Amino acid sequence: MSIINDKFMLKNETGRKLYEEYAKDMPIYDYHCHLNPKMIAENARFKNITDIWLGGDHYKWRAMRSCGFSEEYITGSKSDFEKFEAFCETIPYTIGNPLYHWSHMEMKKYFGIDLTINKENAKEIWERANEVISGEDFNVRNLITQSNVKMICTTDDLIDTLEYHDAINADDTFDTKVLPALRPDKLLNIEKEGYKEYMEVLSGIVGYPVTDTESLLKAVENRVDFFHDHGARLSDHALDTVFFEEYTAEEIEAIIKAALSGEKISKVDSEKYRTFILVKLGAMYKKRDWAQQYHIGAIRNNNSRMQSKLGADVGFDSINDELVAVKLSKLMDTLDRTDNLPKTILYNLNARDNDVIGTMIGNFQGETDGIMKIQFGSGWWFNDQKDGMEKQMKSLANLSLLRKFVGMLTDSRSFISYPRHDYFRRILCNLLGQWAEEGEAPDDMELLGKMVKEISFENAVQYFNM
Amino acid sequence: MSIINDKFMLKNETGRKLYEEYAKDMPIYDYHCHLNPKMIAENARFKNITDIWLGGDHYKWRAMRSCGFSEEYITGSKSDFEKFEAFCETIPYTIGNPLYHWSHMEMKKYFGIDLTINKENAKEIWERANEVISGEDFNVRNLITQSNVKMICTTDDLIDTLEYHDAINADDTFDTKVLPALRPDKLLNIEKEGYKEYMEVLSGIVGYPVTDTESLLKAVENRVDFFHDHGARLSDHALDTVFFEEYTAEEIEAIIKAALSGEKISKVDSEKYRTFILVKLGAMYKKRDWAQQYHIGAIRNNNSRMQSKLGADVGFDSINDELVAVKLSKLMDTLDRTDNLPKTILYNLNARDNDVIGTMIGNFQGETDGIMKIQFGSGWWFNDQKDGMEKQMKSLANLSLLRKFVGMLTDSRSFISYPRHDYFRRILCNLLGQWAEEGEAPDDMELLGKMVKEISFENAVQYFNM
Amino acid sequence: MSIINDKFMLKNETGRKLYEEYAKDMPIYDYHCHLNPKMIAENARFKNITDIWLGGDHYKWRAMRSCGFSEEYITGSKSDFEKFEAFCETIPYTIGNPLYHWSHMEMKKYFGIDLTINKENAKEIWERANEVISGEDFNVRNLITQSNVKMICTTDDLIDTLEYHDAINADDTFDTKVLPALRPDKLLNIEKEGYKEYMEVLSGIVGYPVTDTESLLKAVENRVDFFHDHGARLSDHALDTVFFEEYTAEEIEAIIKAALSGEKISKVDSEKYRTFILVKLGAMYKKRDWAQQYHIGAIRNNNSRMQSKLGADVGFDSINDELVAVKLSKLMDTLDRTDNLPKTILYNLNARDNDVIGTMIGNFQGETDGIMKIQFGSGWWFNDQKDGMEKQMKSLANLSLLRKFVGMLTDSRSFISYPRHDYFRRILCNLLGQWAEEGEAPDDMELLGKMVKEISFENAVQYFNM
Repeated sequence: MSIINDKFMLKNETGRKLYEEYAKDMPIYDYHCHLNPKMIAENARFKNITDIWLGGDHYKWRAMRSCGFSEEYITGSKSDFEKFEAFCETIPYTIGNPLYHWSHMEMKKYFGIDLTINKENAKEIWERANEVISGEDFNVRNLITQSNVKMICTTDDLIDTLEYHDAINADDTFDTKVLPALRPDKLLNIEKEGYKEYMEVLSGIVGYPVTDTESLLKAVENRVDFFHDHGARLSDHALDTVFFEEYTAEEIEAIIKAALSGEKISKVDSEKYRTFILVKLGAMYKKRDWAQQYHIGAIRNNNSRMQSKLGADVGFDSINDELVAVKLSKLMDTLDRTDNLPKTILYNLNARDNDVIGTMIGNFQGETDGIMKIQFGSGWWFNDQKDGMEKQMKSLANLSLLRKFVGMLTDSRSFISYPRHDYFRRILCNLLGQWAEEGEAPDDMELLGKMVKEISFENAVQYFNM
Repeated sequence: MSIINDKFMLKNETGRKLYEEYAKDMPIYDYHCHLNPKMIAENARFKNITDIWLGGDHYKWRAMRSCGFSEEYITGSKSDFEKFEAFCETIPYTIGNPLYHWSHMEMKKYFGIDLTINKENAKEIWERANEVISGEDFNVRNLITQSNVKMICTTDDLIDTLEYHDAINADDTFDTKVLPALRPDKLLNIEKEGYKEYMEVLSGIVGYPVTDTESLLKAVENRVDFFHDHGARLSDHALDTVFFEEYTAEEIEAIIKAALSGEKISKVDSEKYRTFILVKLGAMYKKRDWAQQYHIGAIRNNNSRMQSKLGADVGFDSINDELVAVKLSKLMDTLDRTDNLPKTILYNLNARDNDVIGTMIGNFQGETDGIMKIQFGSGWWFNDQKDGMEKQMKSLANLSLLRKFVGMLTDSRSFISYPRHDYFRRILCNLLGQWAEEGEAPDDMELLGKMVKEISFENAVQYFNM
Repeated sequence: MSIINDKFMLKNETGRKLYEEYAKDMPIYDYHCHLNPKMIAENARFKNITDIWLGGDHYKWRAMRSCGFSEEYITGSKSDFEKFEAFCETIPYTIGNPLYHWSHMEMKKYFGIDLTINKENAKEIWERANEVISGEDFNVRNLITQSNVKMICTTDDLIDTLEYHDAINADDTFDTKVLPALRPDKLLNIEKEGYKEYMEVLSGIVGYPVTDTESLLKAVENRVDFFHDHGARLSDHALDTVFFEEYTAEEIEAIIKAALSGEKISKVDSEKYRTFILVKLGAMYKKRDWAQQYHIGAIRNNNSRMQSKLGADVGFDSINDELVAVKLSKLMDTLDRTDNLPKTILYNLNARDNDVIGTMIGNFQGETDGIMKIQFGSGWWFNDQKDGMEKQMKSLANLSLLRKFVGMLTDSRSFISYPRHDYFRRILCNLLGQWAEEGEAPDDMELLGKMVKEISFENAVQYFNM
């Protein structure tokens, strides 16, 4: 028997009741994830438990590396069973880490396996899980449906064809909405290699050459419209460090032309251009009533040796500590001053910035129909654990309005990570239940239940309006 | 029935006993607030609950904006009842926010209304509260007296006449001491518009022209003496960001003369001048045994659109994240080196700096008669909530001496915000009670009770010595 | 009766059982401290309780200063009893501070005195403690043996003779291993006075003149070998602020030659040289399978008045807030890129950096035999208290692997500070017990017990491999 049961993360009676009666059966609105739309379109299946569970999962890889396993067992040539066994051996070392919880939750929910995960049980889990996986019903769409997911927003490049989204939407047999969300990172990365080539591809798609500010913006707006026509109402930006540089139209024109002619762009010019693009995109989003997301504060590719071996996004990113308040304030104010600030969700990776973000959002709230326009995004990435989620919710509650929160998202590449919504809801219900039982919140089940339903699902429906 | 009762915020028996027997009846020593002395002198009354409760209260305004209300309901033209109703509608969204607690505490204490605040009860609360307000006894002085306030220190400009303080003190029918405290922000703002004109007014008041460093310092000391003669023993400085720049006498002379002739002052020159003024003021305070307060870490007027509509200080300020340790250390050391460091209270707005402040104070403690010379100020502004106050008290306890703490202040513009002292005391008693019951502190009621009384009132009396 | 008893810091049954059955009797592996090896070699004794307990203890001095005591009672000319009495008077003001706990723990363990420490009991404690101290068995070695310490790593300069370590190891009557650890701060302090003279002493020791990069590195490696031959497997570096500056061999050569000819070294040149030295030392450590420690984030000698009176390291240091992530990432990556990154322990003084450190270590984990190569060091200095240790352990658990943690160290100059290991273990057991009882960790005493033993002792044995 694993630790996953009805009372899991629910440490008080009120919290358990809130969870049972108001949270558990709410659908999932997964407004930000990295699921592969092709796999949904093709209703992909999986080879084995290593394929579906360990492939591409940085959290698990980092834990295995911290346990001293060599890359052979992680990204290397060991057999799938050996890799799985190594992960099972790692799990008893993850006590106190969300991996311990997530892994047991996922194993129970999707494979009906309630064993404690460890080296001794690895063989039995391997066999039982693979039997489930080999069943006909075990496919991507059933995993989504079974998880009660009503909405999925993927993460898509500006030049993506969105063909798989088309295919999914053309298929009446699948009820979950799968919409694209725009992540135009490569449009912003003017100082990096490949920008010029990227602009050439963009030119080809829009049907005219991008040669200056005007044609660039026209092409970008063309693509925003293309996304909009495909149902997108959401964008996403990585602000590893927050940037804000004042610029003139002449400077931007010169910077774009320099980049398009293959010149190297300086850091300050890159930040001018990035600021310019964010401001212009913000206005485009605002015009179409989109929401934008800023993901703030990662430090990436710290390990250049592993990057040269394995590439980017393989578990060598971590939390940065650059300052955020002044530049973020200026960026948002620049948009707001001309009434071009769209709905915005701010996610910070460094939890020490929670209070900065929790108060920053209050500076730009708007006259909206009951939604909270500027949101403090859920505990993100490394903060997607009990302490991290509680800290985010408490900062949001203390400094703003928790009840207006659009709630949880998976941010995941995995088709079986939906239990993180369940995890979040348990932690939310536990927190509210504790407040009620200790007299800090009213012991009014109807009111608290409404709040639980709003944060679990309804606020997101109303906020994103897709 | 609201959630306010005898056990409110008191989650253990020892804490409840400490509160009942040692905290509850202690007088209030409100050593820093923004009350209007004119209203005390004139014993002002109020039009209705919106007038006394919502007027000028940023906390409430921010919450209403976050709820999506338009400015019409906040600072605009809607009727007082409509504004009040909108606020009541906001309250059920503030679960987890101190507003939920403060509002119910204030409603119960000053209006005897124990209803849950929400839209449904808005009309009844409006009527009952307004009836109380219309009673003859409902005036500023009675509110103060009824709140058991022994001392009020207001916040006053260097050129203030202090005439209302004179009037209050000349009136024997009112027992609470109301003393001025010096907040010479405009003296420091050399880079802002109006500095030159301000100096001209100052010149007029002191009776000789401020033309250089010497006459400026003479005029300032003249005003410090004027405040001292009016009973002031306290000053206050906004250090939105901590500044420290080395300077020479020649540089300061040149900067002052440039500013007095209307020249624009650069950022670095402004910081030299500001450093100079703080050092000189510190010495003046030390000589007169004053205490100085540094309020560190706000980022103000983030929303320029709203600032141009409504002006400053209307709820668009938030928490900054600039670095503080190095400059603060140098500033305090510069004063201490010549034995000119007065009693000092450091308030940080960003709670992530708690440990920096909690240890910084330990570097400059002095040979004093049992008081802790350098204080870590109470959870301030956005931190004036349970989590914020607990974090401040735990940092102070872990890194310094909690028992020497001068405790709570309202920092408020409202005549009915004194329950925040009660809130603070409950949280303090709860914390000590928990430590005692869990064996981290001695279960010695006499000792703990003494500690509660000291932090609630006695330490402040001894520290400020007014 | 003081608050120290079987349940102290153990607030749940599971935690108490874990402590009793798995933690309490584990030996101590004190891999980083500042004990004086001469005192161990000579088996020193003590004059009285003030001598052993207050001499050189900044924590106690800071508390006494915060209580308003003059230096006469701290570092000055008052009698030992007067100093002791002043400290006893201070203790009731330290409720909430670890000093309250440590002091009562030490008094009970080493002197069998279970009285509450205060002014009233000062005389009795003084007499009883001094009687114990006057006993023949009360000496340095017995204190160590009685504390069940298996390993002590001292902190030693690059040019130290290690003669006392030789003497201790030559003496078969003392079983505890006492090994040197290298702290080559003076080698790095190229911008400070005395560098040139230090290099001359180093030249004398190695037997050839240090005149350039090559001879410097040769001399340093000679000393590293000397330490290695004396059993050292550990070094330690103070990175008050993290530095990283790219450099060329030519630049380093010029900087070293300039310093050796007595020129003043600029800040940027100093950081180039420091980076260079850390990189070269790292490679030397890696080659010999040493571990290196980085102590990050102090701001020292804040009070120049007291520094000029008393010198350095007398209680006027505190927590800094400089940024750490980017430079630390580059420094570690530079070592890792050439496979020269040794086992490394990162200690941060500012707990707000916990999450940065907790994720940074995950970027550089290696292929090791089950140890976690890069460690997040235990709550250090000001964080060596319940909240600080819990925060460090929770960050480590959430973001990495708590169970692979090498655990506690004293970092102390005192021969009776070993109860801090006991304090740490109680807090660890309490945390695990709470997780188990609340269903966050498996209620598997064998597994949790193993984890407790590993973190208390076994991980350190395996990690340091001395």
